[in-house]
Amino acid sequence: MYRTHNCGALSLSELNQSVLLSGWVQKIRNKGFIIWVDLRDRYGITQLVFDAERTPEEVFTAAQALGREFVIQIKGTVIERESKNPNRATGEIEVLVEDLTLLNASKTPPFTIADETDGGEELRMNYRYLDIRRDPVKEKLIFRSKVTMAVRNYLSEAQFIEVETPYLIKSTPEGARDFVVPSRMNEGQFYALPQSPQTFKQLLMVGGLDKYFQIVKCFRDEDLRADRQPEFTQIDCEMAFVNQEDIIQQFEGLTRHLLKEIKGIETGPFPRMSYEEAIKTYGNDKPDIRFGMTFKELNALAQGKGFGVFDSQELVVGIAVPGAAKMSRKEIDGWIDWVKRPQIGAKGLVYVKCNADGSYKSSVDKFFSQEILADWARFCEAERGDLLLILSGEATTTRTQLSALRMELASHLGLRNPEVFAPLWITDFPLLEWDEETQRYHAMHHPFTAPKPEDLVLLKENPSAVKANAYDLVLNGNEIGGGSIRIHDQALQAQLFDLLGFSKEEAEAQFGFLMNAFQYGAPPHGGIAFGLDRLVTILGGEETIRDFIAFPKNNAGRDVMIDAPAPLHPEQLEELALKSIAKPKP
Amino acid sequence: MYRTHNCGALSLSELNQSVLLSGWVQKIRNKGFIIWVDLRDRYGITQLVFDAERTPEEVFTAAQALGREFVIQIKGTVIERESKNPNRATGEIEVLVEDLTLLNASKTPPFTIADETDGGEELRMNYRYLDIRRDPVKEKLIFRSKVTMAVRNYLSEAQFIEVETPYLIKSTPEGARDFVVPSRMNEGQFYALPQSPQTFKQLLMVGGLDKYFQIVKCFRDEDLRADRQPEFTQIDCEMAFVNQEDIIQQFEGLTRHLLKEIKGIETGPFPRMSYEEAIKTYGNDKPDIRFGMTFKELNALAQGKGFGVFDSQELVVGIAVPGAAKMSRKEIDGWIDWVKRPQIGAKGLVYVKCNADGSYKSSVDKFFSQEILADWARFCEAERGDLLLILSGEATTTRTQLSALRMELASHLGLRNPEVFAPLWITDFPLLEWDEETQRYHAMHHPFTAPKPEDLVLLKENPSAVKANAYDLVLNGNEIGGGSIRIHDQALQAQLFDLLGFSKEEAEAQFGFLMNAFQYGAPPHGGIAFGLDRLVTILGGEETIRDFIAFPKNNAGRDVMIDAPAPLHPEQLEELALKSIAKPKP
Repeated sequence: MYRTHNCGALSLSELNQSVLLSGWVQKIRNKGFIIWVDLRDRYGITQLVFDAERTPEEVFTAAQALGREFVIQIKGTVIERESKNPNRATGEIEVLVEDLTLLNASKTPPFTIADETDGGEELRMNYRYLDIRRDPVKEKLIFRSKVTMAVRNYLSEAQFIEVETPYLIKSTPEGARDFVVPSRMNEGQFYALPQSPQTFKQLLMVGGLDKYFQIVKCFRDEDLRADRQPEFTQIDCEMAFVNQEDIIQQFEGLTRHLLKEIKGIETGPFPRMSYEEAIKTYGNDKPDIRFGMTFKELNALAQGKGFGVFDSQELVVGIAVPGAAKMSRKEIDGWIDWVKRPQIGAKGLVYVKCNADGSYKSSVDKFFSQEILADWARFCEAERGDLLLILSGEATTTRTQLSALRMELASHLGLRNPEVFAPLWITDFPLLEWDEETQRYHAMHHPFTAPKPEDLVLLKENPSAVKANAYDLVLNGNEIGGGSIRIHDQALQAQLFDLLGFSKEEAEAQFGFLMNAFQYGAPPHGGIAFGLDRLVTILGGEETIRDFIAFPKNNAGRDVMIDAPAPLHPEQLEELALKSIAKPKP
Repeated sequence: MYRTHNCGALSLSELNQSVLLSGWVQKIRNKGFIIWVDLRDRYGITQLVFDAERTPEEVFTAAQALGREFVIQIKGTVIERESKNPNRATGEIEVLVEDLTLLNASKTPPFTIADETDGGEELRMNYRYLDIRRDPVKEKLIFRSKVTMAVRNYLSEAQFIEVETPYLIKSTPEGARDFVVPSRMNEGQFYALPQSPQTFKQLLMVGGLDKYFQIVKCFRDEDLRADRQPEFTQIDCEMAFVNQEDIIQQFEGLTRHLLKEIKGIETGPFPRMSYEEAIKTYGNDKPDIRFGMTFKELNALAQGKGFGVFDSQELVVGIAVPGAAKMSRKEIDGWIDWVKRPQIGAKGLVYVKCNADGSYKSSVDKFFSQEILADWARFCEAERGDLLLILSGEATTTRTQLSALRMELASHLGLRNPEVFAPLWITDFPLLEWDEETQRYHAMHHPFTAPKPEDLVLLKENPSAVKANAYDLVLNGNEIGGGSIRIHDQALQAQLFDLLGFSKEEAEAQFGFLMNAFQYGAPPHGGIAFGLDRLVTILGGEETIRDFIAFPKNNAGRDVMIDAPAPLHPEQLEELALKSIAKPKP
């Protein structure tokens, strides 16, 4: 037996008991005649005392050779501490050591194992197993485990069945790029790793399972952006005999349960907003509604007054920044520079200070009277002391720019409180997007999304106007879940594939099994998938999903710790009937 | 809203209520003036009545057009049935239909959706989504979900953290063949899919997580045998600061919990048996101990009596088959033929009938007196009425043959009751196996398994004699779990790699990260992994793991429903810097 208690367990209730503890040496304070050692494990820290007078001599000598991160086992007696540490669960006691076993020595770690460490990200990723010893990382992994258990318990309680769908499936050219897996037993053929279990969960509904969920790894071979992982985890759900409202209710329930269970926060019914309203009011389809600064369209109040910059534009749109009239000229110039950066790409930024005395000071004073500025302020619901910021240009571009500015300002002003949670449903998405580059329609969600029944008539003549029975769940400016009612009618599915540019043969080759299934009594069904990595990150009040993944990959898709991917043995490739035509590295 | 109740919910408590139901048409009985329809969903079957006198005419007409597996929604009133069906939860009522909506029609299914179906396995796999509608398949998937929840709840309760380890890792030549995944972003390099999260879970222990579990897909590119899947699911567990006894206690607890929770069976402490004893007593290391017929070595009693066949052999070994003395000569000949089949490969089979009158009748009467046969019977613990069956030959081969015979006889005699559960720990495995073909040692479990400390001295001079701190959990003749205490010392791990024929460079390239980790305070640790597919199959009282997998692959590793694997678009291969050198199919 290695221990009678863990390092977070002992208190005065165990006074004078003989105990066995095991763990890592966190800290050593050697006063010559007395040595204090902080012994750490997952559960806490317990202070050990080696006392020259009371500890056997050879044990005391051995203690002097200990170093940080050594793994030891001790036998000792729980005694009361003279100076108690109220910040530590075990702070009332210490353990007077009688026996010491060195279980494993340690080289000096490349960074300190402490909440605040001196190791940079790359170093920490190389030694992820040491990084995980640090409380903040360890706690995030435990937090993730807690969230997934809460999800599973809630859904099981609601009669959802967890079903494992296959990982070795078939590649489909639609959507993002697949990771593929050559088949040795079927030469020249490949499996693909799933981007989501979409078609399988739909088949489970055709199969009558009624309520399905799975917490499942998915894979996308994308050019990685910051904080994107080639493998990610979804909470994947599907239900039969449901409409959009049923699904929203069910998964609002799940989200409310998580906020309650994990964060102790009670939430009322989640607000809902149409896609169109979100775009017009926040400039994007995943608005952060923890704060205001909603978009106000100023065309009527700002155009035709002789300011050419505004007059020629499709959209003039502003936000009222609370309490920001006190910004210095230099600060405002900073924001003007910020929106002009190539990543944002605005031509300029108009400001109107709503002064405390009721007057207005603006960068376009020359063109607009105090009365007109007052009209703007009123329309934008700006109070005295607020700052109006106004962009103009092509509508979509301008909204995107102002949305970026709004978010950046909010961060700057401390309005994005990670302990406040503002969920929001976005509904009424367009079914299709026209892609200029490929000159064809793309499915905004995916090709299995059902059009709104009342829009079916538009499908032939005006596909762009068709709304989908699709919905996203947004939390604090992040899409945490998205789903739709699916098509369950074979003819409609075929029509959609046609609209999306699939030939009949392609549709049959890729999704023949699904369309075939729809001919044997497919029930109405729909579902949702949550991005677990993002969800736990936001619930954890953080921003970097990598922190909530035990062994994440870097931005080049590499695991730097195990050094993967790596070249194969030539025989392995040969067995797979493959030849590498990679160009040699320069 | 599609339904107020599901098809398993209604009883007399809802008498006269107006209800909405949705589901599949299971059965139609049309009596001309009255039509009964069995409406089915996941939860049950409810009888609908369309009555020419009481149902609106257009609804009655529509009902006449219904077919099997049509998906419908009805509105109706719960009424009491005249002839109640006590075998059905809803058997006291029926629903008099007022309104009918056809949600989806169905072609005639290729096989009947019923407990006993007329569809062969291949047909059912092609239409797996219809197969899943059948109660026996659906119930197996629900059963699996229930088992995994029970596992998760038990382990969470015991402070295990579920951590997701990566799926895109690095290929290692040790063990079975990896499935590999070409990396587009790192040309010429490949990820591998994990055969198990072994090294990652060990790193989590180095990282101080203390107790880890994961229910996780694993992958092995093996030449498939019957009932092997290229992707399979493990309950993967690891603990730090534990010895073998700690792990056995913990996971005996889990297994006992499952037997109680899932099967309602209370079990005492599980018996344990050394590997050596299992081989000697049952001829294999996963004995089915639900029945006797243990091996008795007869060398001393049967050799040197003038029967040449026995005299020249390494081992003469017999079993007493209970009550089988009544077998006819023809039946016994059948068993002799059975052991002579090439799959078994025995040269012959000696029998001794222990007659009811105390006499013996044997195929070797000529060579052995009644007294000697009586000695054998006594030694084999055979009663009057039993049948002794005896094989002889090289020890290992003969034990394997007799083990196969014992299992086949037990099946034949109905001794393998699927509702009796006999768990058993096998311990004290050899650490290494000598492989004649490659002329080197292989790890019997895997290269990370710790030798028994007391055997460390043998590691250099007599590696074959070293026992491992490894253990398997056997249930009803199947290995359902296996694990070991791991090496946590860098030098010992290096020594093992050396013994296993790794060069220093190979060991470093493959497992450098692990050996590096061992230098920074790796704690003693160990774990276990359960094969979930096999576990649920046995708990479910069945034998075919495929039945407990929603979308299994066939013996050629193909998913016949989605037709995977499949050729890639040539551009996809090109992007991966790969060229197929598959020979064209003849």
